Amino acid sequence: MPAHPLKIGLIGAGRIGSLHAEHLATRIPATQLLMIADSNEEAARSCAERYAVPHCTQDYMNILRHPDIQAVVICTSTNTHAQIIEEAARMGKHIFCEKPIALDLRSIDRALAAVDQAGGKIKLQIGFNRRFDANYRRVRQAVEQAEIGRPHLLHITSRDPAPPPIEYIRVSGGIFLDMMIHDFDMARFLIGDEVEEVFTLAGVMSDPDIGEAGDVDTAVVMLRFASGVIATIDNSRRAAYGYDQRVELLGSAGAIRTDNNYPNTAIISDGQSVHRDLPLHFFLERYTESFVRELTAFVEAVQHDQPVPVNGQDGRAPVLLAIAARRSLDEQRPVRLNEDF
Amino acid sequence: MPAHPLKIGLIGAGRIGSLHAEHLATRIPATQLLMIADSNEEAARSCAERYAVPHCTQDYMNILRHPDIQAVVICTSTNTHAQIIEEAARMGKHIFCEKPIALDLRSIDRALAAVDQAGGKIKLQIGFNRRFDANYRRVRQAVEQAEIGRPHLLHITSRDPAPPPIEYIRVSGGIFLDMMIHDFDMARFLIGDEVEEVFTLAGVMSDPDIGEAGDVDTAVVMLRFASGVIATIDNSRRAAYGYDQRVELLGSAGAIRTDNNYPNTAIISDGQSVHRDLPLHFFLERYTESFVRELTAFVEAVQHDQPVPVNGQDGRAPVLLAIAARRSLDEQRPVRLNEDF
Amino acid sequence: MPAHPLKIGLIGAGRIGSLHAEHLATRIPATQLLMIADSNEEAARSCAERYAVPHCTQDYMNILRHPDIQAVVICTSTNTHAQIIEEAARMGKHIFCEKPIALDLRSIDRALAAVDQAGGKIKLQIGFNRRFDANYRRVRQAVEQAEIGRPHLLHITSRDPAPPPIEYIRVSGGIFLDMMIHDFDMARFLIGDEVEEVFTLAGVMSDPDIGEAGDVDTAVVMLRFASGVIATIDNSRRAAYGYDQRVELLGSAGAIRTDNNYPNTAIISDGQSVHRDLPLHFFLERYTESFVRELTAFVEAVQHDQPVPVNGQDGRAPVLLAIAARRSLDEQRPVRLNEDF
Amino acid sequence: MPAHPLKIGLIGAGRIGSLHAEHLATRIPATQLLMIADSNEEAARSCAERYAVPHCTQDYMNILRHPDIQAVVICTSTNTHAQIIEEAARMGKHIFCEKPIALDLRSIDRALAAVDQAGGKIKLQIGFNRRFDANYRRVRQAVEQAEIGRPHLLHITSRDPAPPPIEYIRVSGGIFLDMMIHDFDMARFLIGDEVEEVFTLAGVMSDPDIGEAGDVDTAVVMLRFASGVIATIDNSRRAAYGYDQRVELLGSAGAIRTDNNYPNTAIISDGQSVHRDLPLHFFLERYTESFVRELTAFVEAVQHDQPVPVNGQDGRAPVLLAIAARRSLDEQRPVRLNEDF
Repeated sequence: MPAHPLKIGLIGAGRIGSLHAEHLATRIPATQLLMIADSNEEAARSCAERYAVPHCTQDYMNILRHPDIQAVVICTSTNTHAQIIEEAARMGKHIFCEKPIALDLRSIDRALAAVDQAGGKIKLQIGFNRRFDANYRRVRQAVEQAEIGRPHLLHITSRDPAPPPIEYIRVSGGIFLDMMIHDFDMARFLIGDEVEEVFTLAGVMSDPDIGEAGDVDTAVVMLRFASGVIATIDNSRRAAYGYDQRVELLGSAGAIRTDNNYPNTAIISDGQSVHRDLPLHFFLERYTESFVRELTAFVEAVQHDQPVPVNGQDGRAPVLLAIAARRSLDEQRPVRLNEDF
Repeated sequence: MPAHPLKIGLIGAGRIGSLHAEHLATRIPATQLLMIADSNEEAARSCAERYAVPHCTQDYMNILRHPDIQAVVICTSTNTHAQIIEEAARMGKHIFCEKPIALDLRSIDRALAAVDQAGGKIKLQIGFNRRFDANYRRVRQAVEQAEIGRPHLLHITSRDPAPPPIEYIRVSGGIFLDMMIHDFDMARFLIGDEVEEVFTLAGVMSDPDIGEAGDVDTAVVMLRFASGVIATIDNSRRAAYGYDQRVELLGSAGAIRTDNNYPNTAIISDGQSVHRDLPLHFFLERYTESFVRELTAFVEAVQHDQPVPVNGQDGRAPVLLAIAARRSLDEQRPVRLNEDF
Repeated sequence: MPAHPLKIGLIGAGRIGSLHAEHLATRIPATQLLMIADSNEEAARSCAERYAVPHCTQDYMNILRHPDIQAVVICTSTNTHAQIIEEAARMGKHIFCEKPIALDLRSIDRALAAVDQAGGKIKLQIGFNRRFDANYRRVRQAVEQAEIGRPHLLHITSRDPAPPPIEYIRVSGGIFLDMMIHDFDMARFLIGDEVEEVFTLAGVMSDPDIGEAGDVDTAVVMLRFASGVIATIDNSRRAAYGYDQRVELLGSAGAIRTDNNYPNTAIISDGQSVHRDLPLHFFLERYTESFVRELTAFVEAVQHDQPVPVNGQDGRAPVLLAIAARRSLDEQRPVRLNEDF
Repeated sequence: MPAHPLKIGLIGAGRIGSLHAEHLATRIPATQLLMIADSNEEAARSCAERYAVPHCTQDYMNILRHPDIQAVVICTSTNTHAQIIEEAARMGKHIFCEKPIALDLRSIDRALAAVDQAGGKIKLQIGFNRRFDANYRRVRQAVEQAEIGRPHLLHITSRDPAPPPIEYIRVSGGIFLDMMIHDFDMARFLIGDEVEEVFTLAGVMSDPDIGEAGDVDTAVVMLRFASGVIATIDNSRRAAYGYDQRVELLGSAGAIRTDNNYPNTAIISDGQSVHRDLPLHFFLERYTESFVRELTAFVEAVQHDQPVPVNGQDGRAPVLLAIAARRSLDEQRPVRLNEDF
């Protein structure tokens, strides 16, 4: 254990919270996870026990008030993110918050303002973990080092193996805020530019229940960046073959594309076909390493007082894009980002 | 040679005309190429000599009037297609015509009407050769046999290694009518449905001259089919790595995608990278077999009096799509196909 | 048709003979196929009719004696090759002969001596068509241009989808002379060196009938080249997934490997696996282009009086290797090529 | 931390020892690493500090005598493995020992006898970590579940990016005992059978210093299994493109092959080629997960009193194969495993 580990409190011990707890406890040596909070006391306790975390609590204010805790990791439900950010900022804690900050811009702006008022003394990083994935980093590197010249066209494919429970869909904010938000972030990250206009085509193709809940299950959004780059993002809630996460970028001097990750490289040829196993099934398997890397990057940014790799503005922009994409769908027209939202 | 070969006259001995002449002379045994016409007499003569065609002429009417010639293959410049179709139909010749029939709907409709007036006695096939390519046929087969369930999302990538001469661009009708027209046809062919709405984003990204000529060099078009299927088509006039021709289709039970064709399968690993040679460079190399197959299919349709695989309506629809895509770009809005054109 | 086509007679109108006839008639313009001979008169006639060849005969001497015929293509059964080569050489005809020249070295040496006595006036090319395949040519190019440095290790995989009829096996000369002979040639071609030692392990693994016929159905041979390069060749008479034809070469500066050829590039992902269609099924589909190219190369060598790409010595060496490989199997020891055979 | 973690002492804090220490400390929760021993006191201390191990020592007997320590992980130099196994067995410790047990069969047999004398009360697992790699496990699964029928032919490719220092080569026991030993184990593991005969071709192709040290840098060994399966293993000390670790297995109903692992899936197409980054560079990157899994399996076997997945006989057999392979090279003949060794 290092001389001065970063002392951390984790708020929200659900699926993602438990994952971060595991990584903090076992994979990121420069930290000490001191306390876990969850409104479900049993969830907090069992998570703390599993990872030998000394304290657990039902009230996350116990984390924010704890004098030794330097940073918080917020993994609660989305509708509480903004307020906890505000409170944590006021208490002077560094903040790692899961995406999205909120489903509306007003809440986001208030949270970011609270962080700003700390005058640069606290860090806020948003959990867009895919930026830390080896495939996407390689694409970004190709852009930065001009391996494929200037970017012209980007395609992002992002499909889930199966939709979440319909109860979740109802409170998720819809496919654009819940699912495509990762891809909006990815588009900004890969191109390194801001979007000016979006256009959406979408429908209910596989799960009528999703339609009844007022959402769509399949969507394609076109983006026009300030630099003129054109991008498409396609999302489906149901890909029969599993989790499909690929990008493809054409530039003036070439193109780069990534494939999915697979559990093994074996190719089997039999009397019917030449085949391989399905890709890694879902985000927990597929993005394990990027979850570890994003927290490691946050810890390092705090410990060496350097800029976080995904800041508050990076948390706001994809929410705006998601809202605009939905408006485009509702009003059946291209929507410019400088409209009123 | 078969007992009763189909006797053919070829009109237009340019690049595509010469290719068809070669295939008729060497690869399609059930035909006899009797005469070649070209307004450039020398072009007609040299092509006839190369493939041992008995007659050549400067005036294509000599072909239309020749009593033994049963079918014509029209490879002249686009602006003459519609009129030659009308004339050939009146003379009772079966017609294979290169795409597009014309750059405006009025000319197309007049040509199709002339064919209709023959009362089903003559065949008209349009030269959308890519429908006969093994990769695309495999995708179509997957749709027809429901290997991937019902189609949801289609992506077509179609990029040229380098733009044609700027003089050609000027008279080409623009990227939508000249280049993307193949992809509009491909989208209809693969999905087996009609498009209801298009939206275009496009720009001049690599070749300013093309912009000065009033055209774009990079374009993405979104299509909404009557069945709800969403498609994107991306075109670039300049892909540094060569000819890029791929499709990808997501369905309710899976997905299918094609890769490019390569001159060989060799993979070289050296101290820098794991690499292979660039894809087949351009359409003459890439689509050789599909050019042979489309003419073979035409000959068989004529000889066995069966429907042609790409009829007059299949020639008209992509032109309408191209015109709508350009209007969408000009007016920066989604365009419905039932507007006035 | 060119001014002075090479006038050719084809001897043996079986499967390979018909293929060569088709290629000469339709794909290789610089030739004129004048006569086809087959001891089965009906086979000769029907083949001649199909490709519009003016003459057919039961007696191949009619070809050898025909004053206009400049070259013969020998596609008869193996046991007649050597004698027809001798006779054709004496009649001053250029000779393209299917592999192997013969199953014993004495016959081969007599045939080659007859060609030598013509004092360089006639060409003899042996039908090792795989040398003309795009994949293997690319590997050879990598060696010639030192893309992977000096060769160290070579692996050749060569498997048939299913064994030929047991009657064929009985007269075939065995797996080494009938099947692996292609791979012995390939090893010499790719490395550009002579083999000094072979060692064989083999067995009857899939088809007991083949064992009863005194042959093996699965074999691996190791080769040591004069330069020290080590190679392995594996053969199986039965690969459930079809025709498997690959090589892999390690050099001092890298490695190159080829994959099989497929009927299309489509990849299908469904609920079970990510799969593609089986490779091209057998040699007629897989090596079509290489059959065309080898005859084209022969015609050009004759017409421009240049060395043939696969000469008599290239026909003899693989037979010696096959005989040595069988001896190694029978005597369970490594066999040197400078032993008495 | 679990209620009753397995208490472990680690002997040898070099490259592999440090790796195991890291995994025990951070990735395998069911254990507690109590003490680290290394004859280099500083190495033991720094490794203990890095992973918060409470004790370190220069004398590994302090580990063997420690009453709380239940299991030892032996990572010392090869020439000490057998003796430490004997001593640890006498002290009743469970043993995980790096490969190979020893370079001679006598030492191995003495060590295994000591373990046997414990009467089944202690476990001995040998560190053939590659058996735990996802790719090879998938191949083994295909064999066990008869996905490809009965095995016929196996090819193992195993090449290092660059040779170790020549001082290491001199004491390594040679390429067969130091490097190919992994592949001998892999062959036994994948086929699930014993080898009866080996034949070796090998040479000094890339590093003359290795030849002067009495070793070879490139080797191919053929194996004949009792069941008749034929295998080849190729090793090179120097593959310009990095670490190359692949297998390929033909069975009666199909074939399975694995590819290398890569740092990312990105494919770049530029004006020269279609390329990807080199494979993961060496065994520490390539086999990280399999190192974790083998120790986890050992811990589980001890804790649940189940058979270890790689036992003492699995440690002996590859050494015998390596000695036989070297004899085959020296005497230039196939060597049977039932000869005197």
